[in-house]
Amino acid sequence: MDPVLKTLADNESRYLRELAEFVAIPSVSTDPAHAADVRRAAEWVANRLRKAGPMEVEIWETPRHPAVFGRWNGAPGAPTVLMYGHCDVQPADPLELWHSPPFVLTDRGGRLYGRGVSDDKASMLLPILAVEAFFSSGAEPPVNLRFLFESEEEIGSVDLPDLVRARRDALACDVALSADGGMWRPEAPSINISSRGLASLSFTVRGPAHDVHSGRHGGGIANPLHAAAELIASLHDNGRIAVEGFYDDVAEIELALSQALERLTFDEKKYLAEVGAPSGFGEPGYGTLARQWYRPTIEVNGFYGGYQGPGGKTVLPSEAHVKLTSRLVPNQRPQDVVAKVRRHLERHCPAGVSLAIEEGHEGASAYRVSTESPAVRAAAETLRDVFGVSPEFVGMGGTVPIVTTFREVLGVDTVFFSFSVADENIHAPNEFYRPERFRLGLQAWARLWRRLSQDLQKK
Amino acid sequence: MDPVLKTLADNESRYLRELAEFVAIPSVSTDPAHAADVRRAAEWVANRLRKAGPMEVEIWETPRHPAVFGRWNGAPGAPTVLMYGHCDVQPADPLELWHSPPFVLTDRGGRLYGRGVSDDKASMLLPILAVEAFFSSGAEPPVNLRFLFESEEEIGSVDLPDLVRARRDALACDVALSADGGMWRPEAPSINISSRGLASLSFTVRGPAHDVHSGRHGGGIANPLHAAAELIASLHDNGRIAVEGFYDDVAEIELALSQALERLTFDEKKYLAEVGAPSGFGEPGYGTLARQWYRPTIEVNGFYGGYQGPGGKTVLPSEAHVKLTSRLVPNQRPQDVVAKVRRHLERHCPAGVSLAIEEGHEGASAYRVSTESPAVRAAAETLRDVFGVSPEFVGMGGTVPIVTTFREVLGVDTVFFSFSVADENIHAPNEFYRPERFRLGLQAWARLWRRLSQDLQKK
Repeated sequence: MDPVLKTLADNESRYLRELAEFVAIPSVSTDPAHAADVRRAAEWVANRLRKAGPMEVEIWETPRHPAVFGRWNGAPGAPTVLMYGHCDVQPADPLELWHSPPFVLTDRGGRLYGRGVSDDKASMLLPILAVEAFFSSGAEPPVNLRFLFESEEEIGSVDLPDLVRARRDALACDVALSADGGMWRPEAPSINISSRGLASLSFTVRGPAHDVHSGRHGGGIANPLHAAAELIASLHDNGRIAVEGFYDDVAEIELALSQALERLTFDEKKYLAEVGAPSGFGEPGYGTLARQWYRPTIEVNGFYGGYQGPGGKTVLPSEAHVKLTSRLVPNQRPQDVVAKVRRHLERHCPAGVSLAIEEGHEGASAYRVSTESPAVRAAAETLRDVFGVSPEFVGMGGTVPIVTTFREVLGVDTVFFSFSVADENIHAPNEFYRPERFRLGLQAWARLWRRLSQDLQKK
Repeated sequence: MDPVLKTLADNESRYLRELAEFVAIPSVSTDPAHAADVRRAAEWVANRLRKAGPMEVEIWETPRHPAVFGRWNGAPGAPTVLMYGHCDVQPADPLELWHSPPFVLTDRGGRLYGRGVSDDKASMLLPILAVEAFFSSGAEPPVNLRFLFESEEEIGSVDLPDLVRARRDALACDVALSADGGMWRPEAPSINISSRGLASLSFTVRGPAHDVHSGRHGGGIANPLHAAAELIASLHDNGRIAVEGFYDDVAEIELALSQALERLTFDEKKYLAEVGAPSGFGEPGYGTLARQWYRPTIEVNGFYGGYQGPGGKTVLPSEAHVKLTSRLVPNQRPQDVVAKVRRHLERHCPAGVSLAIEEGHEGASAYRVSTESPAVRAAAETLRDVFGVSPEFVGMGGTVPIVTTFREVLGVDTVFFSFSVADENIHAPNEFYRPERFRLGLQAWARLWRRLSQDLQKK
């Protein structure tokens, strides 16, 4: 057996112990209280990279959370490959819905549970372990390597574009491979050829200066919960977004994507059962997958105001709070979408309340890559080797903002090469990872680098 | 000086120490965690009544929180007067907005701050102290006395109707005087001749079985926050309630009430500045006071779902929760209003989510009393004696469910005789009471009983 692949197969239990160590660090980037944990996670990754082989490893500071960079140039004449992933995770709440502690990697029923294990800690650990296997088995990696692990993916990769621009020479490469992104379903391997962009905004509707008695004052002054509800309701009209001009830059779904969609078998009933939704719902005229992958959305992520405790409280509350995000398709610009939503909210705000809008970070554009590009083809052939079947080409509803930056700044495509699966409760309680994907992923990384060393043109 | 009035004037500092003791008991009836505190408050009141004079005092159990009963029959031939008040208080949250601990009576700038001090602990303590002053100064009370202090007013007096029915003989009286209710404004005394009823309902809108990633799933399935917002928005149409049939039983405001309204000077601008609302808002065609006192409402008291923490979280939440109450006017029946709102919600619930409605307690009807009734006139003359000006006759937006029960079961009118004022932040942070009202209130109770002993016909 190939010594690299044998090394990867032989060390699995050690790898899983290391994964548990990584998951135990609650690197919640959105919560300032966890800033030190985020740094700890980045340092853990830097140390792990140093241990993997004779690479140069650096911590790169940003105004918020640090990134980890690694470099190995020992394959002269071979292409240079950039591995991307992220050390940060989503908040774990609501905690009461977890069946095991979120930051304790727990093997239950053949699944590994933990916050961030699927998004993205296990998948980003794979290429580090794979490169170690090359060095430790005496075979050097067949390509030149760059690693870039950020710690701000869950807050929209706010500082990464600046960082990539500032470090474009160190990051120069022939292709980027994203360990983030996830496969579509557990039954078959897949390659994401599309991701949606992201724009975000939050707003507060204010009525009286403080909470007042709903009997004494109700009827006399506006209730900010009513006003906020009206504003949210005004954003959609029967599933279609009702924000003026929202669809101006939205093109119809391309023929190649429609055809790829048609080739997929998709059991909508099963999907709805899995997600627990009573039925599908969304923009009329499109199927569920088309709506999730190739059409834009506006989603309210949080809405709160007034009394939430047990029983009732006859209060007319002072404030209503709304957090929302929009998923974008090609040609939509995040700042333009935010501006349109802002204008819509200002125009539709009912009388008797005041409206304060807070724009989110700079957002991310949508991304597409051709199924015919050499790197995508190398990835597809590698997955066929490892899984025994050809991968499906699929879209992705989520956002990996960095791929746009890699294209713009480094001039390279990004191929999603993650072994997470979309059903693993990411951003939700009881997030998990599949151990067999961990095993196959290790093999796949080693094989992909070998294919790329042959198939990819060095610039 | 009259020995009773002198006793009341001389013991003020002791009375305030006792009030502080009473306020220190966090008798939050809506929160099961405070059940023992509610009982402790009732026992404190029972002991205080026993200390006040040779009365029979009993704790009356209910399925939830206990009531306190007191009786004195030492004035043969004189009318019997029932004093009503409540020992329970609203929750204190949001705690961070209080400037002093809610359950520590705090004198600041000539005001007494504390949760429940205005609603209703100070005002209900007054008649206990007044009756003590009669006994301790050697003058017996001029009327026969009944005291009924419940502990469920803040949860809609759920068990009191049954209790009053079961104890109708013990409670038989010629008039009820409510220490709950509050005066309209600090500038002048007032008597409430109207209160609104209450109906309540809460509902949960469910989408996916658990929170899911808004990028991956957004667009494919319904967002329960959108659906709940649509439902709330559908309840009103530009300030007018849009629930089918809601106004069927709502009569136009009576001429006598309209005329009383016109006699009042009401500085709307000042009111809006006090409450901190940018403008008035509500049912078209009615002034602010008319809307608050004599027209019905539906108010959302709480709305919550999705992520509420710092930063953002790209989640499509599983559930949205809504708590609402409706204020009623005469002829509206609480259960009928709840049924109409339920039908409206079921009819308007958007596709892709499920709706679970939980009806509130049995609610309360609205109440009106004539300004020409002997007890109202006695109260008005007493207030003129104490304050030096005639009281205003006003309505009340809030609800005192028990007055309907007293009319139906005991056959008596209830006169609101509270020395709280509507601007004292009841049901809100920094609730307070005015010490001068405490002083005047003590005198007024003693004087009112004397007037009633002369003016009121014994049945």
